[in-house]
Amino acid sequence: MNRSELIHQIRTKKNFLCVGLDPDISKMPEFIVDNEDCIFEFNKAIIDATAQHCVAYKPNTAFYEAYGLSGIESLEKTIKYIKLNYPHHFLIADAKRGDIGNTSTMYAKAFFNRLNADAITVAPYMGSDSVKPFLAFEGKWAIVLALTSNEGSADFQQQQLGNKLLFESVLESSMKWGNIENLMYVVGATKAEMLADIRKIIPHHFILVPGVGAQGGSLEDVCKYGLNSDVGLLVNLSRAIIYASSGQDFAEKAAEEALKIAQKMSVYL
Amino acid sequence: MNRSELIHQIRTKKNFLCVGLDPDISKMPEFIVDNEDCIFEFNKAIIDATAQHCVAYKPNTAFYEAYGLSGIESLEKTIKYIKLNYPHHFLIADAKRGDIGNTSTMYAKAFFNRLNADAITVAPYMGSDSVKPFLAFEGKWAIVLALTSNEGSADFQQQQLGNKLLFESVLESSMKWGNIENLMYVVGATKAEMLADIRKIIPHHFILVPGVGAQGGSLEDVCKYGLNSDVGLLVNLSRAIIYASSGQDFAEKAAEEALKIAQKMSVYL
Repeated sequence: MNRSELIHQIRTKKNFLCVGLDPDISKMPEFIVDNEDCIFEFNKAIIDATAQHCVAYKPNTAFYEAYGLSGIESLEKTIKYIKLNYPHHFLIADAKRGDIGNTSTMYAKAFFNRLNADAITVAPYMGSDSVKPFLAFEGKWAIVLALTSNEGSADFQQQQLGNKLLFESVLESSMKWGNIENLMYVVGATKAEMLADIRKIIPHHFILVPGVGAQGGSLEDVCKYGLNSDVGLLVNLSRAIIYASSGQDFAEKAAEEALKIAQKMSVYL
Repeated sequence: MNRSELIHQIRTKKNFLCVGLDPDISKMPEFIVDNEDCIFEFNKAIIDATAQHCVAYKPNTAFYEAYGLSGIESLEKTIKYIKLNYPHHFLIADAKRGDIGNTSTMYAKAFFNRLNADAITVAPYMGSDSVKPFLAFEGKWAIVLALTSNEGSADFQQQQLGNKLLFESVLESSMKWGNIENLMYVVGATKAEMLADIRKIIPHHFILVPGVGAQGGSLEDVCKYGLNSDVGLLVNLSRAIIYASSGQDFAEKAAEEALKIAQKMSVYL
């Protein structure tokens, strides 16, 4: 999906909500766990219930790899299901990959060609030749980790590197490797107030914002400091939506939570 | 496998060679490609031929994920085959994972519990809580990226962060998160001369060294600057060994290459 299509979806649906599909069998309703492929059945119910209230889905690969081959199969089925039934939803593989050039190309093929994701999250530590291969696929996106939502972001990302912070250096360097049509950034909602300065470096790029909800970030602050004239935000919620209830009504409750957030978002658009 | 067992294997076999299992169907001998699971058949032949000349294997997950589900199945079969037939070889999943705490735990479960790898490579950009979950598994190892072998390592890793370079900060911070029994580091052979300074920071840790061979690093320099009293090195070669020949004799030639390197290594032990 290209940039103008994404913006069109956001403007049409009046929200910039991304639903994180992080299935954890220990948190699922019991009646779902009885299914042969409970991960896919859980996701399918969540997707059908929330699709009208969001513009993107973001499965985190860790939650599938943890269940071995069958987990990966559930991931493939989930992405196929979304692409077939909701082709206008943006699909982010939250995989945080990155390796030397020819190896990153292998990852890009895995996620863009095989899995048909629109975007993949990429860890920048290995530098340009680890990121650029993901930018060479027409209509596909690399979402580079800049300032993450976790405590550990203080360890390196927020350390002084010359006259700037490391994550600022990551932004300034990597924005030259691609453009606003193939490159986005991850900035955690727990650092929403830093979005004002970040917007000075990347005024036009889309930013994927995790950390609203379970991690405590504020949607209001994210919008205040992060919105740009093309919206420029995808705000992700995972646990707060998909585990809103552990009962028979889990999908219904997920839809209610997604709707609530979508409505809040509409105020800012 | 714990540290003393690893050192024992190295001392007994008189080498510290790790063979990188990075299967690329386009580089395999044609007669192998005809097999239903050519990746596994290729790996199996390489493993049987090289096992007596190395102490470790390192499949890079990108080369399996690029082939979808069947590729991941080949990875599982490969690891099972090594664990069953060569239980004294150290098994590194070169996956370069890393995410917020509970998600890193999912990756750790995937690689340590499901796949039964001894070690996994970890990207440090997200900081302490992205690395520590990998250190909580008895007898398992996190191998943190410090100074990688690619050109892009200049972009951030070698930039000044306060009064040190970023990779030095990664070493100094992360060494406090674990110990020499559960933590190793990646330092590329293309930066071998920097191993002398790195050894001042981490005198006792094992270092996994890629970049000898196809990438141009020198084994002599790596040994000169990197060896410690417990050897402390695992030197990885992938392409130079596994694609030594593309003919019927590919496994035999791989064994010859591995033996050559193992013999060179024995001089330094």
